[in-house]
Amino acid sequence: MPLTDPDRLFPLDARLRSLARALYGSVKDLPIISPHGHCDPRWFAENTRFPNPAELFIVPDDYVFRMLLSQGIAMPDLGLPRVDGGPSKADPRAIWHLWARNMHLFRGTPTAMWLDHAFEHVFGLDVVLSEQTADACYDHIETRLAQDAMRPRALFERFNIEVLATTEGALDDLRWHKMIRDSGWTGRIVTTYRPDAVVDPEFEGFAANVTRLGEITGEDTTTWEGYLKAHRTRRASFKTFGATATDHGHPTARTEDLLRPQAEALFQKALSGRCTAAEADVFRGQMLTEMARMSLEDGLVMQIHPGSRRNHSARVFAQHGRNMGFDIPGRTNYVDALKPLLDAVGMEPALTIVLFTLDETSYGRELAPLAGAYPALRLGPPWWFFDSFEGIKRFRETTTETCGFYNTVGFNDDTRAFCSIPARHDVARRTDCAYLAELVGTGRLRENEAFEVAHDLTYRLAKEAYRL
Amino acid sequence: MPLTDPDRLFPLDARLRSLARALYGSVKDLPIISPHGHCDPRWFAENTRFPNPAELFIVPDDYVFRMLLSQGIAMPDLGLPRVDGGPSKADPRAIWHLWARNMHLFRGTPTAMWLDHAFEHVFGLDVVLSEQTADACYDHIETRLAQDAMRPRALFERFNIEVLATTEGALDDLRWHKMIRDSGWTGRIVTTYRPDAVVDPEFEGFAANVTRLGEITGEDTTTWEGYLKAHRTRRASFKTFGATATDHGHPTARTEDLLRPQAEALFQKALSGRCTAAEADVFRGQMLTEMARMSLEDGLVMQIHPGSRRNHSARVFAQHGRNMGFDIPGRTNYVDALKPLLDAVGMEPALTIVLFTLDETSYGRELAPLAGAYPALRLGPPWWFFDSFEGIKRFRETTTETCGFYNTVGFNDDTRAFCSIPARHDVARRTDCAYLAELVGTGRLRENEAFEVAHDLTYRLAKEAYRL
Amino acid sequence: MPLTDPDRLFPLDARLRSLARALYGSVKDLPIISPHGHCDPRWFAENTRFPNPAELFIVPDDYVFRMLLSQGIAMPDLGLPRVDGGPSKADPRAIWHLWARNMHLFRGTPTAMWLDHAFEHVFGLDVVLSEQTADACYDHIETRLAQDAMRPRALFERFNIEVLATTEGALDDLRWHKMIRDSGWTGRIVTTYRPDAVVDPEFEGFAANVTRLGEITGEDTTTWEGYLKAHRTRRASFKTFGATATDHGHPTARTEDLLRPQAEALFQKALSGRCTAAEADVFRGQMLTEMARMSLEDGLVMQIHPGSRRNHSARVFAQHGRNMGFDIPGRTNYVDALKPLLDAVGMEPALTIVLFTLDETSYGRELAPLAGAYPALRLGPPWWFFDSFEGIKRFRETTTETCGFYNTVGFNDDTRAFCSIPARHDVARRTDCAYLAELVGTGRLRENEAFEVAHDLTYRLAKEAYRL
Repeated sequence: MPLTDPDRLFPLDARLRSLARALYGSVKDLPIISPHGHCDPRWFAENTRFPNPAELFIVPDDYVFRMLLSQGIAMPDLGLPRVDGGPSKADPRAIWHLWARNMHLFRGTPTAMWLDHAFEHVFGLDVVLSEQTADACYDHIETRLAQDAMRPRALFERFNIEVLATTEGALDDLRWHKMIRDSGWTGRIVTTYRPDAVVDPEFEGFAANVTRLGEITGEDTTTWEGYLKAHRTRRASFKTFGATATDHGHPTARTEDLLRPQAEALFQKALSGRCTAAEADVFRGQMLTEMARMSLEDGLVMQIHPGSRRNHSARVFAQHGRNMGFDIPGRTNYVDALKPLLDAVGMEPALTIVLFTLDETSYGRELAPLAGAYPALRLGPPWWFFDSFEGIKRFRETTTETCGFYNTVGFNDDTRAFCSIPARHDVARRTDCAYLAELVGTGRLRENEAFEVAHDLTYRLAKEAYRL
Repeated sequence: MPLTDPDRLFPLDARLRSLARALYGSVKDLPIISPHGHCDPRWFAENTRFPNPAELFIVPDDYVFRMLLSQGIAMPDLGLPRVDGGPSKADPRAIWHLWARNMHLFRGTPTAMWLDHAFEHVFGLDVVLSEQTADACYDHIETRLAQDAMRPRALFERFNIEVLATTEGALDDLRWHKMIRDSGWTGRIVTTYRPDAVVDPEFEGFAANVTRLGEITGEDTTTWEGYLKAHRTRRASFKTFGATATDHGHPTARTEDLLRPQAEALFQKALSGRCTAAEADVFRGQMLTEMARMSLEDGLVMQIHPGSRRNHSARVFAQHGRNMGFDIPGRTNYVDALKPLLDAVGMEPALTIVLFTLDETSYGRELAPLAGAYPALRLGPPWWFFDSFEGIKRFRETTTETCGFYNTVGFNDDTRAFCSIPARHDVARRTDCAYLAELVGTGRLRENEAFEVAHDLTYRLAKEAYRL
Repeated sequence: MPLTDPDRLFPLDARLRSLARALYGSVKDLPIISPHGHCDPRWFAENTRFPNPAELFIVPDDYVFRMLLSQGIAMPDLGLPRVDGGPSKADPRAIWHLWARNMHLFRGTPTAMWLDHAFEHVFGLDVVLSEQTADACYDHIETRLAQDAMRPRALFERFNIEVLATTEGALDDLRWHKMIRDSGWTGRIVTTYRPDAVVDPEFEGFAANVTRLGEITGEDTTTWEGYLKAHRTRRASFKTFGATATDHGHPTARTEDLLRPQAEALFQKALSGRCTAAEADVFRGQMLTEMARMSLEDGLVMQIHPGSRRNHSARVFAQHGRNMGFDIPGRTNYVDALKPLLDAVGMEPALTIVLFTLDETSYGRELAPLAGAYPALRLGPPWWFFDSFEGIKRFRETTTETCGFYNTVGFNDDTRAFCSIPARHDVARRTDCAYLAELVGTGRLRENEAFEVAHDLTYRLAKEAYRL
């Protein structure tokens, strides 16, 4: 019995279902464009086998372990690494059993669908994971993982990925990207410039990070001008490793466009560690506008994704550090916050800024109206909590009428879970095709247009928007 | 002709409708668990007949009279009691006629569906209420109300209610609960601890209320320690009358975790009546965290439902007092507001805090991510303005993908309108089954899982979450 | 081949589609009531032919040119008029070609549907506009525009418009309305009182505007009392030109109810140009309450539509001025903001205030609860970015359950694009009928009720609410 329904996510109505199938049929085999994500380039550099099933599916995937935590399962029992030296049990088979016993928690979630897809299509499983089948599934996956066909590069090719972007900090030496390039392997893995550590005065070790940025680039980062030059230099380096984009994850969407003396003074204050929280926010806002100006010069696409209240649980942060599933979305105001940046460069057609959100109320009220007016703006796909059937559906329903399809940029998977990439893109393709079928069935789109849009949403828009 | 469609709220598609019917068939006769509501325990203590139709259906139900007011019908014409000594016309049959003439106002509202359900299934009516049928309906209901089978206890049993929670203030003497217990009647009615009058410095008579709390409990409530002890004592008393939960309806979700000397000083200031509005808010926030700590000790489930701007109309409040339909929802921030409480006790699996909202934008952005991470948190069902077909549908669609079904706690009716209880639970059961059928039909859930989830949403989750 | 699907926007399910068709059939030929819009009364006064296709469809319609701008097309290439003396290319056929090449941008938007409707039903086109057909379409429309049957008055009659409201500023001399009245033409065009320029201290030339208001009315507008009298006088004048409503588009929904000495002092400060931004906001808020009081006296219906951050792009505003598609919605709080006004007059059944929003999150959380309680309040239809299939659907789904249909006021088109009026009302009628069919199909409304509601939403509610 297949784990997944071949008609999943399609409309129920027979005529629409048939049209959705046809639309999906026309895009399902298109290569995957993955312009934003968090896979580890080391996997493809070293091409060693993935570890055991638990460390592949559970430990690194906050979608998975967060749900288990939410029901009272202890973090050590899931083998989650600690930063405070406390104990963390790590028998992979025990973790796997604990998970299998709790698979009902994932009913109705995209995680369940992604997992079924990966189990079936990547690992060839044909039984539902449960307490009863836990050992058999574990052994089956473990056996497969030992095969060469399951190493990172082989999977990359089998997944039909045309290009995969990773994300590296401004101080990263990009060694794995270099190793990939030097290896002669033809898989296209590109980096993305993520400067949080050197643009956020509240980041751990900000001043030291800026010093290090100076060392790497040979610029005098004790001055505002040298600091900006260092960014330019670093961006150029990233471009040599394929980067076509930068990535900015601030708590808010605040931007600023200070006069130069004010910016310089604020930079000095930030370096000296004397910034108030409010001033740190102004500085981050100023750097978004500076980065936008640099993008206008060097052509890197700018991604802004504000709104996450990171490390919400003090206890979890103290014991386990960052990225433990406790990044909680909050309300985000784009209209007022982006005005300084947009007044500076928003009308430039040569600039592309991709806006993401964790606050769905902004889709129809703020983001679609902004992207439907400013030439520099495009809407990023629904992501994080919203890269799901309902999430994508709401995104299309609340943005398309205002900014159309062509101010959006296709899908991205934004994932650390490599084996879920085909499943995630598949959900997006199916959901978009279901939406397009609905538009045709209700006389809002012509059938020939729907086929063209399906192709654009799956392939062309991501490739063009990200200049890949 | 039946007043209600036997397939109401089910999907239109034949295959889905058939599945929804089957799912509903498997849960429709399960006992009602009603863990949160506002029925009067006196009804079951005294077991006297309900008054006339107007005082059963219109006068006490703010869903009903609010709609009539909104179209310009005067409050006295509806017999609404006044607190300012002004006149209030009260001929029940005249009120009934006024209502019958305006039944079109309720088209498309859940009130219309609840009423039809109660008319048909509780009172055996088979004509639509209208100006023409007003007298016949009135007489029919009036006749039925005189029958013993229509007294509160008989209805309770006929409604197949396994347990019904009422809500009493901290100073309530719980006499009706005692009378029920002493009567030997086996219907399970439990109380709930609602301490607003003794935790909110802005509540009328706060200081006197705290004094009274001291008298009731024999604790010295002039000290912070004695005051906290008095709460513990009172909570224990409520437990002897079946309480398994507390209930907290603050204007915001603000919580605090002050150092003890600060908390003590603020308590003294509150007692002396010198708190500013801001300080009163801090004190309420501190008390939420204190109540959470007590819940961890005594096992009472904590319910938090912020966001209502109560008594919005100054004129209505002056003339008619509280609970007159002028409690209007406002935006509510949970992510920042709950952090102090969650940092204190959010990771405790032994604690259960049920979060409610009147701001649907928080479902996907804040509440589902929080409940999908913190072991102490569960999501309360959609309620108040949202315990309707569309409201429940939106709740499932925007929360399930992030926190699943098992971080929710089934349905509750939250009502003063006893005869609407079966109708309200029926709407929830039907809407959930429709949603589950949709998931199965689109390949997002297996059919056998859907039956299990339907049972859990109807019965098990409420019972377990509320420890009933 | 017809450009539009005769069953567009109807449900897919055969039974529902058939019912939706029947409902729509019962209302499609009802006259259009257009109680709020921005058509130019001069068209009907002079009754000269409309200019070329580009200046009819593109240049004046910010829905159309905004989408083109958003994809990097330059404003001068679209012939958009400038206020700074810069060049603006204006060959209409070139603009038309540029548009035709970019028609794919509008896929899935209501603009595409409105255009197809106007092309087919107003101009008799039967080919899809594209680069290939651009010249043929242009010539076809150009030929039609020259015919007498396509002049404004003829179209008004052909569109079956029973009444059309325009909007004029308080200082407008209403000459075109006078000319229409004096012409003996029987088409009913009424004005609407829009006092922004004389109630907003931040409006360009506020003090001079108030002086001019005094001159027009013969009142002493240097005093608070004279200023209020001048408004009363002006409102009375507007009534003689058919006005039944006033229109207020403030940045926020803030209202105030100051004591008279405070209001007087603030007015003097505003006149002297010394108001802070905060004080200007208080003054606007005070004037909403004053206008509500005047409405209670003179019976003019009050329309409040807050929330637009107007002229968001500084560059576009400097080069092209107002109304260039850069008015972006922002979050709007109604519950706290309207309290002063509602405490003053909200319980008056003789007053009608129509509330609009650009923030859909307020529908269920704030607007429906408010309109479902206060007799003076009604909900305006979804508009601006939301007068579309999905927009209208969300409006009904999130408001009906709380405030029913009878606290809403039918549809309005709010448009400057005269030829789109039938299309816009047609979308509203179809979408409402689809929603009603859905309610019937799921047992939430009886079929006979649905026919009555369809008629009310299309015709009666707008006519009665606006007292037309």
